[in-house]
Amino acid sequence: MFIIGERINSTRQFIARAVQVKDTAFIQAEAKMQVNAGARMLDVNCGTLTREEEPSCLEWLVKTVQEAVDVPLCIDSPNPAALAAALAVHRGRALINSISAEGERYSHVLPLIKEYGAAVVALCMDERGLPKDGIQAMETGSKLINRLLDDGLPLEDIYFDPLIRSVGTSTGAALNALQTMSEMREQFPGLHLVSGLSNVSHGLPERRHLNRAFLVLSIEHGLDTVIIDPTDSTAMALIYATEALLDRDRFCLEYIRAFRQGRLGGK
Amino acid sequence: MFIIGERINSTRQFIARAVQVKDTAFIQAEAKMQVNAGARMLDVNCGTLTREEEPSCLEWLVKTVQEAVDVPLCIDSPNPAALAAALAVHRGRALINSISAEGERYSHVLPLIKEYGAAVVALCMDERGLPKDGIQAMETGSKLINRLLDDGLPLEDIYFDPLIRSVGTSTGAALNALQTMSEMREQFPGLHLVSGLSNVSHGLPERRHLNRAFLVLSIEHGLDTVIIDPTDSTAMALIYATEALLDRDRFCLEYIRAFRQGRLGGK
Repeated sequence: MFIIGERINSTRQFIARAVQVKDTAFIQAEAKMQVNAGARMLDVNCGTLTREEEPSCLEWLVKTVQEAVDVPLCIDSPNPAALAAALAVHRGRALINSISAEGERYSHVLPLIKEYGAAVVALCMDERGLPKDGIQAMETGSKLINRLLDDGLPLEDIYFDPLIRSVGTSTGAALNALQTMSEMREQFPGLHLVSGLSNVSHGLPERRHLNRAFLVLSIEHGLDTVIIDPTDSTAMALIYATEALLDRDRFCLEYIRAFRQGRLGGK
Repeated sequence: MFIIGERINSTRQFIARAVQVKDTAFIQAEAKMQVNAGARMLDVNCGTLTREEEPSCLEWLVKTVQEAVDVPLCIDSPNPAALAAALAVHRGRALINSISAEGERYSHVLPLIKEYGAAVVALCMDERGLPKDGIQAMETGSKLINRLLDDGLPLEDIYFDPLIRSVGTSTGAALNALQTMSEMREQFPGLHLVSGLSNVSHGLPERRHLNRAFLVLSIEHGLDTVIIDPTDSTAMALIYATEALLDRDRFCLEYIRAFRQGRLGGK
């Protein structure tokens, strides 16, 4: 499983404050903590700022984080100006988060992917918004992936995100998303599947249980990349456990290594 | 999910002691605790005793537990004499745990099922022992279920247990068991699937993570009955969560009820 650390996101209050006052030490500590916990890439997001402030702040985040840790970043913004500013200072190969088939988003983000040779998260969404069912999800998803392929992106640089509604408000939302994952992997062998997972439990109590169960089920349906808080050792342990059970970790070597490194400590 | 509480088992040291000294209050407290935590049936097992002692002790356990709680029991022994003694005093409809296709076990247990109109756990095992792979599991399982059906048992009274080896020693063990579950449900629609789950992690560290991930995956593959410690609130919360995600709990009503009753407290 490719783990992307999600903690450096200005929707978290401490991060918002650190971004505002340019608290380098705090951001760098968050970065190191996540890499130590097993993240191989870090998401950076300051989307709660104004559209004018976002580019310079995202640029600052990229520089600040990459001074502290030697991993590539997942640059998380719907704003092409912010993506461009961040990509310009990013070292190594970035993952742009994200593109979709909505309005001008596609045509504004595509040139950035090409210019920087970046990989990209492709959201299953078009002018109609989130797909209303599994059939529309497959239609939207296939069309978007084929468009990216036609525009010259290699399949292995595309991370498809099925976008999940909450099971609290949308009956069948999780089942639909799981089926979309399986079908997309069947239709595009080698396509990466990524998800943020936590939308599935929006509006419900004690959300961690739903998020974790959905994580396990998603791995079975082909999820190979996850945007998660890697310091949540219970969730991380479930990832190692699920991969061992599904024979993606021969002889449980990764599981045992995580144990020896003290990373299977969750309750 | 039909929850069978597993705590009254003499492999647990405190239970062994309580059985030896006939500590009624202790056993009854264990019974009440499990029913309060959501168990709808309780397993009783005193298999660590000698073959001579087991019948009278299992009989005592059945009487003692049913004085305290109003649920049927899962009478857990490979010893027909112990099963007979326990069934004779059991009130309501028992689940016999278990029958298999090994040697004389089938012919010794079948008359007890018939005499008491009990349901039965059917272990996927014959003279050859545990199945060595998925193909042999399907062969052994189908043969056993068909034999029970031929002998007049209704399918809805049969709880098939695929028997799981540890992923620590047997590569593909979990994947094989999951596939066997799906295939058995396809071949015998309406067949119950039950599992003890914890064998899957035998010999590995921090086993709870593997057991829980396997629980989630098993539910997706049709598990509808589980023998578990219902006071493990993290595992129970994962069960409620998984059923909500898989659309087996419309509008998440059970999940929300478990929350309101303070039963989603696991970390």
